[in-house]
Amino acid sequence: MQYALYYWTGIQGRGEFVRLALEDAGADYIDMARVHGDAVMQPFLDGGSEGAQPFAPPFLKAGRQVIAQVAAILDFLGPTLDLVPQAASRRVQALQLQLTIADLVAEVHDTHHPIAASKYYEEQKTEAKARAASLRSERLPKFLGYFEQVLAANGGRHALREHSYVDLSLFQLLSGLDYMFPRRMQALAPTLPLLRALQERVAKRPNIAAYLASERRLPFNTNGIFRHYPELDAER
Amino acid sequence: MQYALYYWTGIQGRGEFVRLALEDAGADYIDMARVHGDAVMQPFLDGGSEGAQPFAPPFLKAGRQVIAQVAAILDFLGPTLDLVPQAASRRVQALQLQLTIADLVAEVHDTHHPIAASKYYEEQKTEAKARAASLRSERLPKFLGYFEQVLAANGGRHALREHSYVDLSLFQLLSGLDYMFPRRMQALAPTLPLLRALQERVAKRPNIAAYLASERRLPFNTNGIFRHYPELDAER
Repeated sequence: MQYALYYWTGIQGRGEFVRLALEDAGADYIDMARVHGDAVMQPFLDGGSEGAQPFAPPFLKAGRQVIAQVAAILDFLGPTLDLVPQAASRRVQALQLQLTIADLVAEVHDTHHPIAASKYYEEQKTEAKARAASLRSERLPKFLGYFEQVLAANGGRHALREHSYVDLSLFQLLSGLDYMFPRRMQALAPTLPLLRALQERVAKRPNIAAYLASERRLPFNTNGIFRHYPELDAER
Repeated sequence: MQYALYYWTGIQGRGEFVRLALEDAGADYIDMARVHGDAVMQPFLDGGSEGAQPFAPPFLKAGRQVIAQVAAILDFLGPTLDLVPQAASRRVQALQLQLTIADLVAEVHDTHHPIAASKYYEEQKTEAKARAASLRSERLPKFLGYFEQVLAANGGRHALREHSYVDLSLFQLLSGLDYMFPRRMQALAPTLPLLRALQERVAKRPNIAAYLASERRLPFNTNGIFRHYPELDAER
């Protein structure tokens, strides 16, 4: 089946978690907005198209089905793309882990928008600085320490004892945080050996390595979810 | 099967979305922390118990399985409790809607904690006031307007053309927002006729009505997710 992925042009954003799964599996997909422009998403967001109405991008069209929300898309794609264990009990565990990744991603987003998603970062810089301090010192060690524990409990190499979309999302999470907080992430690295090794292994998977070297992989930038503002990173 | 629900005592919080599903279905469950105290959750959170490690409550124990994250728990319970349509395409749609509810709940939480989850509301009141203004004027109409559209597109009475856990969660979402922002929600009511009617119908479901009248239903309070601080509601 050919999938149609709908996500904003110009950024990796939340769409990247889906893109990495499609790329890793070698799935046939079209990145619709990159081909046709962002306006191609509007009829879906307005509720005027066939299939369930998405609240926001990313969403995926698979035949007549429309699925929004990263974790729901990955839960849907997992079995077909062989990116989740077959047992139902493991599939729900993958979903649980993905949702915890999504929670951290939401906190990352809000670090740049602590007051209002509709306002620019520059309009809420003071509050962003305070929130970034909390993210760096409290939330990152808590979340990343949790994922490190999950890897340890599952044999050390995977979040779910075998390759899955969760591993791909952990790769993206760490890569985004490396861009966002290079100093802080370097300081945390010694406490996260399993996550760091996983990140390197995922980057070397043939389809992922090819994707990362392609023009389809946009660089991180300060319009996306993970943003690098030096003033928000830790002191040297 | 007897389920064990683990969630903080003293508040409805995120656990209430799971509780409502268990109550509506008449499921056999024990609210573990209410019986044994909050400390009963710690071994799970430390990763020392059988089953997948949760990042945070709520989590559910079903036989040997441990499942965390509200949306994952409801996705798991849905088919067994007959609280989700049987078709896989509708089940993923339920998950997508539940995740959008979860997104708004996270924004509600952050309204009281715009700078740091670890700090008290009283330590971030100024920022909370600014964030609440954005939630009231921009985010609530956007999210609730979306759910109103979803109801309209599905026949008007349900989020998914038949009763599901999503309807129960929409009831809880509206009830929480009514407590949090009574003035703002009253002003929005005329734009949300289908959601308001759904909320009333859910409250009258026999098992839900019995639950709401029981001592098991804690009142909303300012320790939970939905908090009423008059200064954050709209002007009269």
